[in-house]
Amino acid sequence: LIIIGERINSTRAGIREAIKAKKPDFLIDEAKKQLACGAQFIDINCAMSATDEVQDIDWTVSVIQSALPGVSICLDSPNPLAIKRALEVYKAGGELFINSITAEEKRMADIAPLALKYDAKLIALTMGAEGMPNSAEDRFAVARSIMLKLSETGFDAKRLYFDPLIRPVSTEPEQAKEVLRSIPMIKSLGANTVCGLSNVSFGLPDRKVINSAFLAMALYAGLDAAILDPTEKQVMSVARASAAILSDDEYCAAYIGAFREGRLV
Amino acid sequence: LIIIGERINSTRAGIREAIKAKKPDFLIDEAKKQLACGAQFIDINCAMSATDEVQDIDWTVSVIQSALPGVSICLDSPNPLAIKRALEVYKAGGELFINSITAEEKRMADIAPLALKYDAKLIALTMGAEGMPNSAEDRFAVARSIMLKLSETGFDAKRLYFDPLIRPVSTEPEQAKEVLRSIPMIKSLGANTVCGLSNVSFGLPDRKVINSAFLAMALYAGLDAAILDPTEKQVMSVARASAAILSDDEYCAAYIGAFREGRLV
Repeated sequence: LIIIGERINSTRAGIREAIKAKKPDFLIDEAKKQLACGAQFIDINCAMSATDEVQDIDWTVSVIQSALPGVSICLDSPNPLAIKRALEVYKAGGELFINSITAEEKRMADIAPLALKYDAKLIALTMGAEGMPNSAEDRFAVARSIMLKLSETGFDAKRLYFDPLIRPVSTEPEQAKEVLRSIPMIKSLGANTVCGLSNVSFGLPDRKVINSAFLAMALYAGLDAAILDPTEKQVMSVARASAAILSDDEYCAAYIGAFREGRLV
Repeated sequence: LIIIGERINSTRAGIREAIKAKKPDFLIDEAKKQLACGAQFIDINCAMSATDEVQDIDWTVSVIQSALPGVSICLDSPNPLAIKRALEVYKAGGELFINSITAEEKRMADIAPLALKYDAKLIALTMGAEGMPNSAEDRFAVARSIMLKLSETGFDAKRLYFDPLIRPVSTEPEQAKEVLRSIPMIKSLGANTVCGLSNVSFGLPDRKVINSAFLAMALYAGLDAAILDPTEKQVMSVARASAAILSDDEYCAAYIGAFREGRLV
């Protein structure tokens, strides 16, 4: 499981204020904390600052990369201009995710060449012209269509991560099952899957319990990467236990190590 | 999910001593505690007392049924004589599980008529003549063979619960995946599945984390019943979250109720 730490997101008040005031320390601390908890990538999302996003994201990327040389990052924006601006200051070194494209032709045409140029992994939301998908079959159809278009540009399916767009079980109780069912279908295309975990529990109490149960199920279904809060101990504990259960952790060594370091709930 | 509370088991020292000294209070407290935590059945296993099992189990069943009229119980013994003795004192009222048969002809011939007579649900271990199963296919083959033999006696597959025999991931890392894979295969026979949860985490630290991650996966695979410790808050929290995720909990009402009652971790 590739873990992408979600905490540097301007929907969070502290992050928004730190970006607005151009105070790097809080952002750097958030990045370090997530890496210490097991994140492999630091997601950077400045999209709440709306008009300022294009300016904010390059400053934020520079701050994180200067403080943590070689850190792997995930540039997270629906706006190709913001992605472009971030890449202008981006320093090669770690690995890179670009998050995201959809089936929208213009967005794909803008982003795919950049992903190729920077040798980035690319997240594609399974959102088609008709908007949000409902069934697993909808998700698969959008994924296949995106993959066909991308393959014309020479983009390797192995670097493609489809997000099947989980929605809250509190308001759309059938959607979690459809997302889970879509994972092996999408993987049969030769591509990977990624999930923004916390949406599943929106509107419910004790969200970590829902998030961790859903993560275990998604890992069994074959999920390759998750965007989550790695400081959430229960979610990370279940991620580690799931690796042991699915024999993705030889001799349970990582699980036992995490226990010894006090990282399990 | 049908939850069978596992705590009245003479492998536990306190239970063994209470049975030996014929002190009912500790056993009754254990039963009440499990029911309060959400168990639907109370498992009664006296098999550690070896030669005394046949005497102990009827006393234990009487103690629990007298204190808790109408309680649903699970008679748990590899020994048909112990099951028979327990049924001699058993009072109809709640529901009944008999745990267990295997593919062994004699054990099946002894137990199946009792399960029919007492309208019990019957647990069958997927253990064939060659001993413990390895692949999901092994488990399926044993289950099908047991089901064919039982169908000759008129036993309804709907009352049959196959236990695919989970083994510790610490020593047999591939077995958990095989068990998970076997669940939908066995269910395709029209029968149910049950799992003795805690074996999966034997030999590992912080067993509740492994148990709860495995339970979430097994529920997604279609597990119908689990033998577990319902006083383990994390496992029960994940069981409740899983029901919400799999839309087996309308409006997440049971999950939200459990939160309000302080039952979630």
